[in-house]
Amino acid sequence: MPRPEPFRFHTRIRFIDTDASGRIHYTAMFRYFESAETEFLREFGVMYGKSGLAFPRVHVECDFFLAIVHDDLIEIEVFLTQLGRSSLRLEFRALKSNHLAAKGAVVIACMDPKTQRAAPIPHELKQRLATKLMNAVESAAKGD
Amino acid sequence: MPRPEPFRFHTRIRFIDTDASGRIHYTAMFRYFESAETEFLREFGVMYGKSGLAFPRVHVECDFFLAIVHDDLIEIEVFLTQLGRSSLRLEFRALKSNHLAAKGAVVIACMDPKTQRAAPIPHELKQRLATKLMNAVESAAKGD
Amino acid sequence: MPRPEPFRFHTRIRFIDTDASGRIHYTAMFRYFESAETEFLREFGVMYGKSGLAFPRVHVECDFFLAIVHDDLIEIEVFLTQLGRSSLRLEFRALKSNHLAAKGAVVIACMDPKTQRAAPIPHELKQRLATKLMNAVESAAKGD
Amino acid sequence: MPRPEPFRFHTRIRFIDTDASGRIHYTAMFRYFESAETEFLREFGVMYGKSGLAFPRVHVECDFFLAIVHDDLIEIEVFLTQLGRSSLRLEFRALKSNHLAAKGAVVIACMDPKTQRAAPIPHELKQRLATKLMNAVESAAKGD
Repeated sequence: MPRPEPFRFHTRIRFIDTDASGRIHYTAMFRYFESAETEFLREFGVMYGKSGLAFPRVHVECDFFLAIVHDDLIEIEVFLTQLGRSSLRLEFRALKSNHLAAKGAVVIACMDPKTQRAAPIPHELKQRLATKLMNAVESAAKGD
Repeated sequence: MPRPEPFRFHTRIRFIDTDASGRIHYTAMFRYFESAETEFLREFGVMYGKSGLAFPRVHVECDFFLAIVHDDLIEIEVFLTQLGRSSLRLEFRALKSNHLAAKGAVVIACMDPKTQRAAPIPHELKQRLATKLMNAVESAAKGD
Repeated sequence: MPRPEPFRFHTRIRFIDTDASGRIHYTAMFRYFESAETEFLREFGVMYGKSGLAFPRVHVECDFFLAIVHDDLIEIEVFLTQLGRSSLRLEFRALKSNHLAAKGAVVIACMDPKTQRAAPIPHELKQRLATKLMNAVESAAKGD
Repeated sequence: MPRPEPFRFHTRIRFIDTDASGRIHYTAMFRYFESAETEFLREFGVMYGKSGLAFPRVHVECDFFLAIVHDDLIEIEVFLTQLGRSSLRLEFRALKSNHLAAKGAVVIACMDPKTQRAAPIPHELKQRLATKLMNAVESAAKGD
């Protein structure tokens, strides 16, 4: 079976994201994951703040494997690994010179901002996203 | 004439606010000024997001005199130095062990979020703020 | 058996930590966890940047249960739940008006900054920390 | 006389940089100025953290003219307007759809991190930078 192709986002680590350890502050990795997520979802016509829905995070996590420092060029791979009625899970792999530097995940709820309650992901969006669903970050990551 | 007493806010510098230089990233000082501003305005019953008005910044500035590092205890003095029809100016002095480490200023507009246009500062608030107005940060700072 | 007492840290949510959803940006919760961690470790004489060791995070996670907004007063409970040769795990519970708003964890490695390799947690520090070790966040949380 | 050409940097405003007002938090503009500065100085071979010198800011300022929101595409122009023995001044103009949204400045000191004192800008760097010096942000801005 062909290995699924993740969405890829390239960015550079900025000085403001470092801390006195000389590395990035770990929360900065979530900033870059968020940029990658925005560009991934843009391809599906999703733009936060313009759809009448809100997308709060209900779970986030990240593991760090390599030091990441100012000016590093990072490639972030985005994988859609769960697609539920009113939530989805994105996984991220941050690569530095093709080595896995960090991997993370966010679980995003679809919420009606008026009621502040979970709302179904709009049908058309869900259909489009379904084409990108993979349960195979592990195998995609094989070889690391 | 008695020296006017500024509002005082005490805080500790957090690790996340440092950068790879070992000092704080300069933008972090604005974070601490903002906390001081919030507590200063709380005394006048102003709570951003709860008054039906918006308070965007139209000008901000800061000068840095001393290195500020993780875990420093900082005292911030807040001075109201201008009070116009629809804007006000706050000045800040950040003290580290009683030495002037930074000073800054913000000019805040009062805006109607519906029209996105300048709105007069509510009369009652303006009257209360007027009691704190001083044109004398320089003299207050004398002795530094 | 008596219920173990977590370390408690109180803080206020600042405007800069909100985003256009009207809530805090989720990364801000890690900022507040970090402040709680610093104060927790201060009791054991640990001060980042002053011990000759570095303490990078190798894993972080957070679950969000309630909306957290500007000016909220938050209580953060800190639990030491793992204490290994060269790493430790801290868990956090963020309470808003006594309701669980978020819970998170960080796994911190002890590293020699010169070699950039794992280093044992100093013996004396480990002994002091051991008195706070609990395997019981679940039971402590009972009743939520 | 020909109008001097500023260095130009293009970026997109990220969600994490917004606040509950719906606009960007004003400190975020300094983040984007910093990215522009880094890319401007890269052309002169300057890379913070790799030159043996430190470049703390001694003054920063910004004026805001237009609302800037999530996902806006921004063009930042960078002008070198002062070049002293041990400091330089950069000015920035942030354009949104070709309209001036913000303008700012930073004064950067050149510092020896060992002595924590001002150090002369290295001769060769100064010569290269001198070719970019302009005293004419106003005239460059003519027509706005």
